[in-house]
Amino acid sequence: MEEMKDKCGVFGIYSNDKDINVSGVVYTGLYMLQHRGQESAGIAVKNGDDKIRCHKRMGLVSEVFDDFVLNNLKGDIGIGHNRYSTSGESHVENAQPIVLKYMGGNVAIAHNGNLINWRKLKNDLQEMGFMFQTTSDSEVIGALLAKTHIETENLEESLIKVSKTIKGAFSIVMIAGDKLIAIRDPFGFRPLCLGKLENSYVLASESVAFSPIGAEFVRDIEPGEILIIDKKGLKSIKYEENARTAFCIFEYVYFARPDSTIDGVSVYSARIEAGRNLARECKIDADIVIGVPDSGVPAAIGYSRESGIPYAEGFIKNRYIGRTFIQPSQLKREQSVKLKLSALPGQVGGKKVIMIDDSIVRGTTSKNIVHLLKEAGAKEVHFLSSSPPVKYCCHMGVDTADDPKHLIANNYDIEGIRKEIGADSLHYLSLEGLKKSPIGSNIGYCTACFNGDYPIPVEPLG
Amino acid sequence: MEEMKDKCGVFGIYSNDKDINVSGVVYTGLYMLQHRGQESAGIAVKNGDDKIRCHKRMGLVSEVFDDFVLNNLKGDIGIGHNRYSTSGESHVENAQPIVLKYMGGNVAIAHNGNLINWRKLKNDLQEMGFMFQTTSDSEVIGALLAKTHIETENLEESLIKVSKTIKGAFSIVMIAGDKLIAIRDPFGFRPLCLGKLENSYVLASESVAFSPIGAEFVRDIEPGEILIIDKKGLKSIKYEENARTAFCIFEYVYFARPDSTIDGVSVYSARIEAGRNLARECKIDADIVIGVPDSGVPAAIGYSRESGIPYAEGFIKNRYIGRTFIQPSQLKREQSVKLKLSALPGQVGGKKVIMIDDSIVRGTTSKNIVHLLKEAGAKEVHFLSSSPPVKYCCHMGVDTADDPKHLIANNYDIEGIRKEIGADSLHYLSLEGLKKSPIGSNIGYCTACFNGDYPIPVEPLG
Amino acid sequence: MEEMKDKCGVFGIYSNDKDINVSGVVYTGLYMLQHRGQESAGIAVKNGDDKIRCHKRMGLVSEVFDDFVLNNLKGDIGIGHNRYSTSGESHVENAQPIVLKYMGGNVAIAHNGNLINWRKLKNDLQEMGFMFQTTSDSEVIGALLAKTHIETENLEESLIKVSKTIKGAFSIVMIAGDKLIAIRDPFGFRPLCLGKLENSYVLASESVAFSPIGAEFVRDIEPGEILIIDKKGLKSIKYEENARTAFCIFEYVYFARPDSTIDGVSVYSARIEAGRNLARECKIDADIVIGVPDSGVPAAIGYSRESGIPYAEGFIKNRYIGRTFIQPSQLKREQSVKLKLSALPGQVGGKKVIMIDDSIVRGTTSKNIVHLLKEAGAKEVHFLSSSPPVKYCCHMGVDTADDPKHLIANNYDIEGIRKEIGADSLHYLSLEGLKKSPIGSNIGYCTACFNGDYPIPVEPLG
Amino acid sequence: MEEMKDKCGVFGIYSNDKDINVSGVVYTGLYMLQHRGQESAGIAVKNGDDKIRCHKRMGLVSEVFDDFVLNNLKGDIGIGHNRYSTSGESHVENAQPIVLKYMGGNVAIAHNGNLINWRKLKNDLQEMGFMFQTTSDSEVIGALLAKTHIETENLEESLIKVSKTIKGAFSIVMIAGDKLIAIRDPFGFRPLCLGKLENSYVLASESVAFSPIGAEFVRDIEPGEILIIDKKGLKSIKYEENARTAFCIFEYVYFARPDSTIDGVSVYSARIEAGRNLARECKIDADIVIGVPDSGVPAAIGYSRESGIPYAEGFIKNRYIGRTFIQPSQLKREQSVKLKLSALPGQVGGKKVIMIDDSIVRGTTSKNIVHLLKEAGAKEVHFLSSSPPVKYCCHMGVDTADDPKHLIANNYDIEGIRKEIGADSLHYLSLEGLKKSPIGSNIGYCTACFNGDYPIPVEPLG
Repeated sequence: MEEMKDKCGVFGIYSNDKDINVSGVVYTGLYMLQHRGQESAGIAVKNGDDKIRCHKRMGLVSEVFDDFVLNNLKGDIGIGHNRYSTSGESHVENAQPIVLKYMGGNVAIAHNGNLINWRKLKNDLQEMGFMFQTTSDSEVIGALLAKTHIETENLEESLIKVSKTIKGAFSIVMIAGDKLIAIRDPFGFRPLCLGKLENSYVLASESVAFSPIGAEFVRDIEPGEILIIDKKGLKSIKYEENARTAFCIFEYVYFARPDSTIDGVSVYSARIEAGRNLARECKIDADIVIGVPDSGVPAAIGYSRESGIPYAEGFIKNRYIGRTFIQPSQLKREQSVKLKLSALPGQVGGKKVIMIDDSIVRGTTSKNIVHLLKEAGAKEVHFLSSSPPVKYCCHMGVDTADDPKHLIANNYDIEGIRKEIGADSLHYLSLEGLKKSPIGSNIGYCTACFNGDYPIPVEPLG
Repeated sequence: MEEMKDKCGVFGIYSNDKDINVSGVVYTGLYMLQHRGQESAGIAVKNGDDKIRCHKRMGLVSEVFDDFVLNNLKGDIGIGHNRYSTSGESHVENAQPIVLKYMGGNVAIAHNGNLINWRKLKNDLQEMGFMFQTTSDSEVIGALLAKTHIETENLEESLIKVSKTIKGAFSIVMIAGDKLIAIRDPFGFRPLCLGKLENSYVLASESVAFSPIGAEFVRDIEPGEILIIDKKGLKSIKYEENARTAFCIFEYVYFARPDSTIDGVSVYSARIEAGRNLARECKIDADIVIGVPDSGVPAAIGYSRESGIPYAEGFIKNRYIGRTFIQPSQLKREQSVKLKLSALPGQVGGKKVIMIDDSIVRGTTSKNIVHLLKEAGAKEVHFLSSSPPVKYCCHMGVDTADDPKHLIANNYDIEGIRKEIGADSLHYLSLEGLKKSPIGSNIGYCTACFNGDYPIPVEPLG
Repeated sequence: MEEMKDKCGVFGIYSNDKDINVSGVVYTGLYMLQHRGQESAGIAVKNGDDKIRCHKRMGLVSEVFDDFVLNNLKGDIGIGHNRYSTSGESHVENAQPIVLKYMGGNVAIAHNGNLINWRKLKNDLQEMGFMFQTTSDSEVIGALLAKTHIETENLEESLIKVSKTIKGAFSIVMIAGDKLIAIRDPFGFRPLCLGKLENSYVLASESVAFSPIGAEFVRDIEPGEILIIDKKGLKSIKYEENARTAFCIFEYVYFARPDSTIDGVSVYSARIEAGRNLARECKIDADIVIGVPDSGVPAAIGYSRESGIPYAEGFIKNRYIGRTFIQPSQLKREQSVKLKLSALPGQVGGKKVIMIDDSIVRGTTSKNIVHLLKEAGAKEVHFLSSSPPVKYCCHMGVDTADDPKHLIANNYDIEGIRKEIGADSLHYLSLEGLKKSPIGSNIGYCTACFNGDYPIPVEPLG
Repeated sequence: MEEMKDKCGVFGIYSNDKDINVSGVVYTGLYMLQHRGQESAGIAVKNGDDKIRCHKRMGLVSEVFDDFVLNNLKGDIGIGHNRYSTSGESHVENAQPIVLKYMGGNVAIAHNGNLINWRKLKNDLQEMGFMFQTTSDSEVIGALLAKTHIETENLEESLIKVSKTIKGAFSIVMIAGDKLIAIRDPFGFRPLCLGKLENSYVLASESVAFSPIGAEFVRDIEPGEILIIDKKGLKSIKYEENARTAFCIFEYVYFARPDSTIDGVSVYSARIEAGRNLARECKIDADIVIGVPDSGVPAAIGYSRESGIPYAEGFIKNRYIGRTFIQPSQLKREQSVKLKLSALPGQVGGKKVIMIDDSIVRGTTSKNIVHLLKEAGAKEVHFLSSSPPVKYCCHMGVDTADDPKHLIANNYDIEGIRKEIGADSLHYLSLEGLKKSPIGSNIGYCTACFNGDYPIPVEPLG
């Protein structure tokens, strides 16, 4: 599918073992979470003196850190953050973690998500005289915590109070004094999970970060949970019971790494099942079924398994994509898709092809991909989306579109979209089909981008 | 498979169109050939004054060049080079293209391959007083050309003479005066092909470089051919007819991009066919067949098609691999494979799995991968290699091993290797099976790494 | 003399002329003020939309900025800051200007000096819930302004209130909303002056910054003055009349550039006069008088003029010093002074030499310099300091020593210091002599480092 | 004076002491020779295996090297090179040392000077088939040595032969095999001297490099001398007795550091004496005499001593000059001199001023400096040049002007120049006066830039 930007990956470690290289573990964790954000990376580490040192820069994890920098980040508690990449305003000031010093001590915050009431909260704080150095909503969380901590003189109480005050999507990993803290919003919009590395604890946006550091997955942080980790161990506070959980179903569709397990369900399996459901809903006479790499592939395999139509690889993806590419002037814009993807004429030539992508957002990439297949000799291209039409903007941190008008499904009916992208037929998985794809999951989903059912009333995007 | 290093990708353009951004085209070509070498990248461009400007650095194409650098490389003939990456001695001095100024003019050389008689040639030149600034065999080619050109006072004649003098694997792209020249050794060890971009000509190691620049594949440069491109057009010289061609069959197995077509055969299709041949040779009772990404995947799909055993994805490959990763000290070495690859328990758990990799060289990676699958719950792991046991070192530019002792197939019989890597069974595709995989190809292959049948007698490696 | 660190140089411009390149002017100003701080440099510029963009980094002005960066800092009001260099904790977070967003708008602050009550002020703010991201006292000023501005709803009133609240040395240049503001503490510890560039106004720590940008010196900002510059012109507020001004006399002795004019007195002339006063106070039988470059030279010339003893250059200073120098291991520490300074045997050999340095702080450099002269053949070395013995630590931003014990004058009497540094005789200018050196000046001085007479009672350094 | 560029500084060490950090010593030496070239810096070190490792880059010594790089340059013989800076074509390929591998072994060459017959020599070599990778004449020296060494099979013999073949200015420091070699041309155009560091030997363009490394000056390398240093000690070969030596007198006037001693004469003393001779030749009624920093200052002091007119400092030079300065667009060009130099009104205001500069080349800087003084209130400005009018281009490596027409003394008579630069009077030191300034020197000088008396007939510059 087209590039969509999720806001960030977070990671944390509370080390009970002197031999653990805390910054090295955070670095490895961030490296595994790179897919959640490529704009900037940062690590903050608290040492024995309760000082927090932080290094953050624009760039990939592997570009931002080197041996020298990691060796200068020594300590026993560490957090890290990958920020997503946008074409617009993106400054190093907005990189995370954000480190603040206040009466109650030092705090470092790494945040994945989006607060919907941050403007009001910031305004209220500013009216009290608070000043801000960034445009990040994470700084607002820190300011609230500072203010509340002074008032209550109790960290736990203030964490609860702050968590109840902020509204929206937030999976937060935080150093506060000598504690590592995880907070997940009551709807559980974004993932966050706990692992164990021998006697130490780790937190990560996705479980995929645990395996290379030798940690074991313990459990997901629950929606509405605050988890405090210190030398006494774990303390869980369920600060809010929500009638409804609303995990972002797009994590299963596109964002999360397929080798992650969220809420007990393998992301990969959910994608396979979405493909199966597509096959159940939509039977097409075709020679082969192919997927658009990477996230369309399991859906294609699932479709093939369910339908019996042979699976094939129709595209090769350039392994070196993701790095900066300077578009030399005379290259035509349509050719640029060929830098990322090439079609295999030997596989698709002369065939009736079912091509599955995870979604259709703006439609431009879809059109280019269909064109690639036709150019490679495909006789028919049947475009299947393993999620329903995207019609509503996200207010919880996913950068689908600023304006619903940019979503192709708001400008055309399905036949219109089909014509626009040049496919021979076009089908979407139903919302029902999508929701039952993560088999065994017992959480509720946020499906607002498909049906406008926002779990929280939202302030207009501005 | 384990990392093997092919020596380099080359690209060239002779522009007949003022509007073509020559350095931009070379940059794009190199970007598409990045898989052939990640150590260094370089571009040399000749401008109207016959001056050649060159920029080369350690790093990936996208790291070595930026807008500023490309804009300073203006001209009408350009060549480029990606060099492979080794852990040992690798200096920027050995980066290519190499630019030399001699009596006959200026020359820039980009070379993929390995000369087996370069030491003797260099020695002979040094005895005549020649000096060298690099340890690259490409500088030897340049020196020979300079010397011969002075003697013969004829560029064409000297190109023929030099091409006959140098022995080994060479696919060369060269700027000499106002000409762009391609030379391929009489055995055709390494690929090299010609394309057309409107009125201009392009050369590339692999055809995959043509599509994103809008060029069309014309033909492979023939073994023993010198192709001279200048304002009069193309001039082909067949300087040597070889009784035998010996194209490196490992290009089909592993090196080349699957979306390239070499000698009329799609690399991807050859890999599918290798999988089919494996299935024909070796029937195994299993639940699923999976491939080790990336090059094992088409073989697995081929095996599945031929055998009827369902294909599945068993591994997820980290998209951000390939960049530098600092190994934090306490990470165990066995864990490091997990940074690159993770197994999908939902796909392989409880199953009898056929796992296909393209080859087994040293065996260490194979062992780690089998272990990953077992850890993910695979009941049985049947390891199939889509090429025969690698038993001989390459002298033509492939960095399999310095010493045949490091090749696992020289230390154990098949049962021994199976035990060593921990598989439940182990099978190799036969050499016959491999050779018939590129269906429709009518060239001969170099298969020395499998059977020791070196097309040219070799001097001992030192 | 030994390296002493003054805190910072500041610069500002309010442009009334569309053609002025605001960031270019600030850059040039900072370049001329480089001697006041080499650790970090920063520029903040407000554009028409009241947004403030800021770029700051560790390094010299010429290293921190390039064309690209300057072109991205467009606007009509700009300020800049050079920070001093210390060997200890110095992070980019402490670089200035500091940019804050609060209810009243955006503010950017560049500050030269040191607040003595910043810990208490910060503490009070933190008790109210304020949080901080740096350890810089400038952030405290910003926080106070934010708080006061909200309370008073009047910028002018809050500037006065804040200026009265903060105690210590402060010469501040600030952007607040659409105004450029200068504030100088009531004692006038640090310099700050106003210039005019056609219809626009400029502010600088020292007048030397005006000439290369084509601006003319107008006047010094007065102690206890707030100057507000906006489209209506200049508005001066004398927020506090002090019984006593206390300009840091060390600015005349060492810090300021000799080509600056402060309080109507040329720094160079004050140094010449200090040399004359030395000659009046202390007659020595010698062949030549030399100065330690750079600040000892005018005192030596003054001494020569008054005494009739010929002036000579005894040392050559390495022009390239100031850049990083890696001390190769085997070089002896005493030799390192020779990287900076070499003595001229032809000038000093066989002579009775009067050597004048601006001061003696820790004494180690003095010893090395005397040794240089003896090695070069000087028969006698009479060391004259053009300022009295330094016995007290500075609390106003000058980094003489953390602890009075490190000041040599607290450990030895004059004869003891003489022996320690190896001179044949040692004399200091009297405090009276120093105070009358800036002829025509009618301001009072801070001379606390010499006599412990701190203008403000100080909290202990910690 | 205006910027003139001398070609390069060279340094070498042959270590007989395991504890010596060879690359560190070369680094320190180059740091002290930085004034001889700021464009690029390089170090080559031979280790025990006779391998030569080299690191060279564009930039200052302190920018090109860091700890990591120096630690990777281990060995027992090392040479280094600083290259001068020009605005035109300057590429890293032309940086030195140049390292070559040929039959006779490995050689590294660092060269200060300019060969006048290099084009012919290069051409002859190219006709024999030799190729070149740079446009540097040093590569030609290497090629000649390689060729000759093969022919003679004797290093010593070939060094003599090569030294006799090349014509022009050359002070060469070279590693050849296990020897460190110094060669100075028979005219002795450029300086080169020998020092001793305990049991080891060092070579440097100027003696000023010895002191900070703890080495002692031994002697100058003689014109026409080859000095071979190896484990047997020193071997001196006087390969050519010249009727005439022709040391570049501009080294005394401007290039060399004042604290260097060349041919037994202190550069500083020679400048003082030039000032005295000016005073003898040219008596002016004035209040003060000042020098243009840095090289005009000793001449001014000498003038003052001889004439009795008081010496004063009239200018302050910006210590941070030399680094890149981006000229912000609206700054007027005449103002840019103020970034480097400011006049002191307190010293020159209302006075009749004698201002001494070392020379007048193009005249533009001279005009700006006179203007500065007038602006600062000088009543009269008498411009004295401590060298005669520059009328001829240098062919020995000094970048005065490409074309004699750019030299102001070829376009105007003295009265015309005076008018052009705006001085009240203008006087030049006579050539006789200049030649007797280095008192005690017994060598001959090249004075071609003043009188066109070229020691070697020159091929036209192209």
